[in-house]
Amino acid sequence: MEKINLIQVGFGRVGRAFFELLKEKYDYCSGHYGLKLELRGLVRSQGAIILSSTKRVLNPSYFATDDLQYLSDWIPAITLSDLLDEFSPGVVVDCTPSDLKTGEPGFSLMKEALAKGWHVVTASKGALANHPTELSDLARKNKVAIKASGATAAALPALDVGLYSLAGTEILAIEGVLNGTTNYILTRMTEGLTYNQALEEAREKGIAEPDSSQDIEGWDTAVKMILIANQVLGTSIKLNEVKVAGIQGISREVIDKTNSLEKVLKLFGKCYREDCASPWKVEVGLALLDYDHPLATVNGTNKGIIFYTDSMGWVAVTGGKSDPRGAAAALLKDIINIYFMNF
Amino acid sequence: MEKINLIQVGFGRVGRAFFELLKEKYDYCSGHYGLKLELRGLVRSQGAIILSSTKRVLNPSYFATDDLQYLSDWIPAITLSDLLDEFSPGVVVDCTPSDLKTGEPGFSLMKEALAKGWHVVTASKGALANHPTELSDLARKNKVAIKASGATAAALPALDVGLYSLAGTEILAIEGVLNGTTNYILTRMTEGLTYNQALEEAREKGIAEPDSSQDIEGWDTAVKMILIANQVLGTSIKLNEVKVAGIQGISREVIDKTNSLEKVLKLFGKCYREDCASPWKVEVGLALLDYDHPLATVNGTNKGIIFYTDSMGWVAVTGGKSDPRGAAAALLKDIINIYFMNF
Repeated sequence: MEKINLIQVGFGRVGRAFFELLKEKYDYCSGHYGLKLELRGLVRSQGAIILSSTKRVLNPSYFATDDLQYLSDWIPAITLSDLLDEFSPGVVVDCTPSDLKTGEPGFSLMKEALAKGWHVVTASKGALANHPTELSDLARKNKVAIKASGATAAALPALDVGLYSLAGTEILAIEGVLNGTTNYILTRMTEGLTYNQALEEAREKGIAEPDSSQDIEGWDTAVKMILIANQVLGTSIKLNEVKVAGIQGISREVIDKTNSLEKVLKLFGKCYREDCASPWKVEVGLALLDYDHPLATVNGTNKGIIFYTDSMGWVAVTGGKSDPRGAAAALLKDIINIYFMNF
Repeated sequence: MEKINLIQVGFGRVGRAFFELLKEKYDYCSGHYGLKLELRGLVRSQGAIILSSTKRVLNPSYFATDDLQYLSDWIPAITLSDLLDEFSPGVVVDCTPSDLKTGEPGFSLMKEALAKGWHVVTASKGALANHPTELSDLARKNKVAIKASGATAAALPALDVGLYSLAGTEILAIEGVLNGTTNYILTRMTEGLTYNQALEEAREKGIAEPDSSQDIEGWDTAVKMILIANQVLGTSIKLNEVKVAGIQGISREVIDKTNSLEKVLKLFGKCYREDCASPWKVEVGLALLDYDHPLATVNGTNKGIIFYTDSMGWVAVTGGKSDPRGAAAALLKDIINIYFMNF
């Protein structure tokens, strides 16, 4: 039985879901994988809590409030640095909100964690999108892992399949339906709604954020595709190199025309190159898929990705919950796979 | 750069494909993963060849004949045992034909290889289906891996996703379209052919074996589902415990009725249990899928599998070449993943 020290940073939607999932899965992970995942600290921008173990947290009365700073253990002055020095290295779980322009606060905190010998699992996209090689180089140098399933398509195992299941193949191209909000809107429009009705409904159901421009304009899809390409293909494509078009204000006439052509309209991320000597390109925009395209039936908030390879043909993965719990499950999966090998 | 000794056993359709793929991918694996995959021996039932390295084999004139025993290095008296003792342990690549009733010759050769500290990757189903725990226990005891992607659904990464991508989830049920031949026949019948026409066409195209009864009667699907369930869920279900029905002699009327119901007919493997306290069951038979079922668009020789989980929702994988090259690529993938971790 191995004790793994965890430090969680960030307590927003994904952070709360991870925290709940960890409590729920503590016994399962110890019984099934021999891993005691001990949460030692919870860090927010204004301070932190130090915990003796996840067991302490398992006491339901302990976290009666969501607002950490009302807890008696809340220490306003303490930072992640203090905690990294306090405990022997395990895994830092980065659930901070991601600024796509700067990559902060994730970039700084991950750099420090990796440099101090901690593994990192992250749900935030900005740092990896802005610094495609720096973090992985640092991880390699310090012989630790940085895993980003939670940032790429959460519960949809895009990175696992690309890196692990397709090992030894050459990947010829990647396509993905990677954004739940836009896919939900397009699906509902196919079912008869106007753009504004579908967007409104997505907001009411909590699928679309109040400001969903990053989703609608295609940037979320672009970032995910970049992260996947950079890790799976070893490229170092940056966000400003990507041609991005979104679905904003798309009209019902377009959808009706799509239906009459017996095609399906999807917001599609693509990674391809003209030939083996050309550089890889990432593009995001609307695409018309035939009914028998493996991603054509990816509807509603579902996501999907397809890899075209030289020796395995194409392999597609679809599904995986598009919600904070799905992202939390992806973080937990990455933690387990750092320590547990299936032999 | 790490040198890995490989010994290949069996030189049938999958064996030849693996041999060709290894030559093709030698430089890629060394450049990309730092693994020099050195084929040291090729064993058949009547003897073996000892090779100095894959480099030797790369000389195209060397293997001008497919029939190994005409080569000057052919040694009739030599066996796998001799080779296992001759080289320092690496990976035994089992491409032997699989007897579903006895599990031989795979069972004996894998036992010996594992006991002598060799990892095993296998494309043969019989041994694992008949001895669900003995081989994995032996591997664990000897701290080596036994990997069976090549036996479960070849290039479709069913085991990877179940074991690796869904780590930390509880799997609630598994469903799969796991046999290319029967799926091809059903797809072509949906397109207007009779059962006999579709079967004949599948034979002409080399999709169906001359004796395809194991496919048609559902046994191939049953074995694959058992292997997946036993590894992913930790069960030890045997073939004689499975309720199996196939597609033999299915009439056009059934297909027409299916179409009129707006459903899709698939030969379906299922693994489920009534509740958490009940034992897992595997069943194989025809199933009517709604058009929006994630496996409904798995057509022709394609395969697909879906896992239902507690924390990631459902995750489906489809595609992956259903031919000897796809199976060979799965063997190669398993070898790489034994040695190469992505950090």
